[in-house]
Amino acid sequence: MPVATFILPASLALQLLSAAAPAAKSAPKAVPAKPTVTAKRAAPVYAQATAEKLIGPALTDGHAYARLAELTDGIGPRLSGSPGAEAAVQWALRSFKADGVKAWLEPVKVPHWVRGEASGEVLASERTRGHPLALLALGGSPPTAPEGLTAEVVEVTSLEQLESLGAAVKGKFVFFNHTMTVAADYGRFAGLRSRGPAAAAKHGAVGALVRSLATASLRTPHTGATNFPSEGPRIPAASVATEDADLLHRLLAGGPVRVKLMLGSSELPDADSSNVVAEIRGREKPQEIVLIGAHLDSWDVGTGAHDDGAGVVMVMEAARLIAKLPQAPRRTVRVVLFMNEENGLRGGRAYAEAHAAELPRHVGALEMDAGGGRPVSVSVRAGEGGQDLLRPWLPPLTALGVTQFSAREAGGADISPLMPARVPFFGVEVDSSRYFDVHHTEADTLDKVDPQDLARSTAAVAWMTYALAEMPGTLTRPEAPAPRGPAPVTVPAQQSKTSGN
Amino acid sequence: MPVATFILPASLALQLLSAAAPAAKSAPKAVPAKPTVTAKRAAPVYAQATAEKLIGPALTDGHAYARLAELTDGIGPRLSGSPGAEAAVQWALRSFKADGVKAWLEPVKVPHWVRGEASGEVLASERTRGHPLALLALGGSPPTAPEGLTAEVVEVTSLEQLESLGAAVKGKFVFFNHTMTVAADYGRFAGLRSRGPAAAAKHGAVGALVRSLATASLRTPHTGATNFPSEGPRIPAASVATEDADLLHRLLAGGPVRVKLMLGSSELPDADSSNVVAEIRGREKPQEIVLIGAHLDSWDVGTGAHDDGAGVVMVMEAARLIAKLPQAPRRTVRVVLFMNEENGLRGGRAYAEAHAAELPRHVGALEMDAGGGRPVSVSVRAGEGGQDLLRPWLPPLTALGVTQFSAREAGGADISPLMPARVPFFGVEVDSSRYFDVHHTEADTLDKVDPQDLARSTAAVAWMTYALAEMPGTLTRPEAPAPRGPAPVTVPAQQSKTSGN
Ligand SMILES: [Zn+2]
Ligand SMILES: [Zn+2]
Repeated sequence: MPVATFILPASLALQLLSAAAPAAKSAPKAVPAKPTVTAKRAAPVYAQATAEKLIGPALTDGHAYARLAELTDGIGPRLSGSPGAEAAVQWALRSFKADGVKAWLEPVKVPHWVRGEASGEVLASERTRGHPLALLALGGSPPTAPEGLTAEVVEVTSLEQLESLGAAVKGKFVFFNHTMTVAADYGRFAGLRSRGPAAAAKHGAVGALVRSLATASLRTPHTGATNFPSEGPRIPAASVATEDADLLHRLLAGGPVRVKLMLGSSELPDADSSNVVAEIRGREKPQEIVLIGAHLDSWDVGTGAHDDGAGVVMVMEAARLIAKLPQAPRRTVRVVLFMNEENGLRGGRAYAEAHAAELPRHVGALEMDAGGGRPVSVSVRAGEGGQDLLRPWLPPLTALGVTQFSAREAGGADISPLMPARVPFFGVEVDSSRYFDVHHTEADTLDKVDPQDLARSTAAVAWMTYALAEMPGTLTRPEAPAPRGPAPVTVPAQQSKTSGN
Repeated sequence: MPVATFILPASLALQLLSAAAPAAKSAPKAVPAKPTVTAKRAAPVYAQATAEKLIGPALTDGHAYARLAELTDGIGPRLSGSPGAEAAVQWALRSFKADGVKAWLEPVKVPHWVRGEASGEVLASERTRGHPLALLALGGSPPTAPEGLTAEVVEVTSLEQLESLGAAVKGKFVFFNHTMTVAADYGRFAGLRSRGPAAAAKHGAVGALVRSLATASLRTPHTGATNFPSEGPRIPAASVATEDADLLHRLLAGGPVRVKLMLGSSELPDADSSNVVAEIRGREKPQEIVLIGAHLDSWDVGTGAHDDGAGVVMVMEAARLIAKLPQAPRRTVRVVLFMNEENGLRGGRAYAEAHAAELPRHVGALEMDAGGGRPVSVSVRAGEGGQDLLRPWLPPLTALGVTQFSAREAGGADISPLMPARVPFFGVEVDSSRYFDVHHTEADTLDKVDPQDLARSTAAVAWMTYALAEMPGTLTRPEAPAPRGPAPVTVPAQQSKTSGN
């Protein structure tokens, strides 16, 4: 069914968009692009036919899901430095070329941590027989001695409590317990994983056990990165399933508990890897760049379907569909598949360094990294008027379920190094309420991604990318963030947002 | 708050209960036991004070859950022949004695199967990199060679399809896939696990992979017994997580798939073990026995909290509370904690044999083995008039959520050997809708049991046990089941009900 197309002259559109009020309210009379058509209401700022060409295929051709199957079933896990990661790099390069999108590799040196075997148990006592622990080494953990590490367990529920215990944890496992129940709790407790083990080591603890950051569990440990400052002591650190954390808590109520942990992890020399970069050159302002990204690496457990295979295929599909339009958008669309988001952020940092001279011409950046759920809102991080500039472009997303802006600012770990250059961010927020059921676990597999949800988010990303690349104006640039001092131990949420999501 | 107590003379009660209609309708005038009290409506057949003494503590004292914690945290898994099973036997014996309930052990020879290590992988091909498989050996599976077993995979979705393939499965893994989504599907597909591997072996297959019988999964394999006839060939058999079954299915759509399986299981000589039997002698008819049972053994993964720790503590608590009543009920209440329900049913068979002479005096038998969910109905398996006899005893269960009879007949694997002796069965049906999320998995742990649900089911079991032991009449005996021939391969549901639930 053909639909009448309205295209606003750029000058009028700019005038409308510069107003603080929504375009629909501030434009009582729109001037139709073609004299034979009379506008009955505020004209959209975009060509309806273009919306159809992007959103229609994304919703119906199943291409994003098929590509996600290639990545997860065909390649599988892709931790930085692993053969899987390199296979994914080659797959992405091939796929962009097959889509007719120019692509290349940019070098990134990445950490090369290897998990090895892991096991642990609660030792038998006069009160209980022994129990195996369902656990995973945290990324970056050193190994234990081959014969394992045995010590008593001390439970804490915050970094503050650890500080107050101080030397009382010497020679012991510090067990970080918490009360995460819903996805929104992740930020509150992720610091226990990312910084808890280093803090415990500082006080002489010999190991760390962290309750999984989980919203569901069937004895399912969740891994993730833990960070040791280069100058400080490093201790073996593992996440335990929530059930095992509950068990430790119950047993500790009855008296001392001893745990034996065996981790066979190893840290190899940094490996050569790559960001995969692709672009569609803009037709009018090719020097202005709209960056859309996701991270190609994943943890080594599961196949990284939600984290971040879904994001990878969304941005790849956005580029493929935009490349098929009759004409390229006004600006350059650049896709970056970052390497090493999970345990180093080397790809995000390498991109910002290598493209430093270009960053003033980056007019927008998006990173999809919250799973393959349905789209729920559009987010933005810009100077004044950001939402007003984007609002006229939202109507094609209504049927996808997106009618409003998120209360959260747009962002992403890999694009966070672009913040000092004041690059504006935009985003499509997805439903992440079930994301932490599988995040960083063996269960992050293709079957967990709903094809329709993925298709809808892909459509929304394709459209918003086009919007940023085509709109006459650009987002005003936000303030640069205040330079960050050493992270205070009392505020765990912030660091977790920029590393290891 | 004291409540008026009505006790019907046994003669009148029998008269009322012999009518097909509910007592409330057929008893226009009740004769109060104490002349000073005038009945205003149909008198209950029981003493309200007794209902309070059983249901009140069960709902409020937390004893069932505390005891379940002792069993699961203190002892843990208890597969037949293992030290855990024997620890559970001693714990149960001690606990009965602490409750003032006479208890003893009855010998049972049990299979002694040991899991050992297990691993498996989809081998890399030109289409895909390799994938580890989340799997568990099925109970009773022989081991593979130490170097593992590698073969191509053939998928079937029914035993009929396997038969139609016949020799085409020779030298291959037969992969049994199915469409279980809800708990009610268990019976439909359990035959694939219990009898599929033997059927595959008969046709020359070298191994079997069975999709887990699961209603939820986070890469969670579900074990369970598989049965090989003593005369037939035996092949290594494992359950795979639903995610891995989906992966195999997807990969098979693209061409041949090869799997490598390594199982280190072993079958040791039969071990000495025990049923734990306890009883409260009846005050008037001690020779008449109301049996309440559950199985003390569990799988070796998880701690058997729902399967069947919950049933164990329900019947132990029923006995403890009945033993504390001012006077014992009319008949003997006997608790049997059966050994080896999961992989042999030796305890159930041993009880029926050892007590053969007594079985005509077993007036009712119940087995709780469907998890620790809330009670939803009362079930019965008896000759004519069974529901009518029990109906007047239901009102105290109304507040627990039980107001009706189940459409299903009462039963249980361990009490099924009592069927030829025409022992009537009764039961408290619980909400099992989430039971197969954790059944036979590492995730069957204490945290999955809701204390309030457990308390309510415990109360219902205590009360219905008392009802059977106190009511003036007894259930009429059902017909003996038709002698069973060799199980037809096309009807998988029946066998699964009597073994390995
Ligand atoms: Zn991620
Ligand atoms: Zn059971």
